[in-house]
Amino acid sequence: MRVIGIDPGLRNLGWGVIDMVGGRLSHVANGILHPEGDDLAMRLLSLFEALTAVIAAHAPDAAAVEQTFVNKDGAGTLKLGQARGIALLAPARAGLTVGEYAPNAIKKTVVGVGHADKAQVAHMVRHQLPGVTLAGPDAADALAIAICHAHHLQSAGRLAAAIRGAA
Amino acid sequence: MRVIGIDPGLRNLGWGVIDMVGGRLSHVANGILHPEGDDLAMRLLSLFEALTAVIAAHAPDAAAVEQTFVNKDGAGTLKLGQARGIALLAPARAGLTVGEYAPNAIKKTVVGVGHADKAQVAHMVRHQLPGVTLAGPDAADALAIAICHAHHLQSAGRLAAAIRGAA
Repeated sequence: MRVIGIDPGLRNLGWGVIDMVGGRLSHVANGILHPEGDDLAMRLLSLFEALTAVIAAHAPDAAAVEQTFVNKDGAGTLKLGQARGIALLAPARAGLTVGEYAPNAIKKTVVGVGHADKAQVAHMVRHQLPGVTLAGPDAADALAIAICHAHHLQSAGRLAAAIRGAA
Repeated sequence: MRVIGIDPGLRNLGWGVIDMVGGRLSHVANGILHPEGDDLAMRLLSLFEALTAVIAAHAPDAAAVEQTFVNKDGAGTLKLGQARGIALLAPARAGLTVGEYAPNAIKKTVVGVGHADKAQVAHMVRHQLPGVTLAGPDAADALAIAICHAHHLQSAGRLAAAIRGAA
């Protein structure tokens, strides 16, 4: 099972790909996309094409995107929403189902507490994916999202197996 | 010159296509897209594919999208942003440049005043595109965006011609 996590943003979009074999996680790749273009439509197109290329290159089986905070100003929230639309569209268009997790749920899974800061998230991502080189904080967040989704899928699989066993 | 106008929304996305020959406008088509799917990623994919099909069917030369109000609540703004990301991406991916206009600028161009209501916009769209049948208020807004962009492109063309003439 290969999972891509995506941390949406219009300036920096973090992505991270991990493998899960049994209960073991391993790092595949991570990076940060910087959209280019003179206007918003071109920047969104640049983001979409780059993210589509990442998905094609690493062929994940599942995807997850961070549920965005909406406590920013209206203009900031709208920008983030536009980037988030692209972050959800690209994996869906590649035929993947896309999980969504609130930031606190991701931190709780990866660090153990919901109020962890970025440094703690990066520390635990390095711990859980030995040998990883992080492209930056947004890529660390994206790997944390992938780890959270992998754990969730594994738990869901165990639950389904337990239900089958009990039937 | 054929122009598509898009009024973004996650429940109803309005679109309208017009032709401009010289200074004369004529209606080509208009409609409203309703995204389908169980989760947000699928709904955005549905919207993207439907809008891409509309653009392929009518082959516009230019596109314009309404600049969204951001005075809603955070969650509403985020949703709208996600739909707007798709509304900008689809024409950009089809190779079109995408103009953006504030709602007041659109109303000012089409109705003559910036504070016109939806009924006034629909009335003036019917007046400027004789014989049009409107799919609904969102489609009327989309045609108004297309009319606004067509006028803007024509003015820009006249200005360029005047500058060439004066050189």
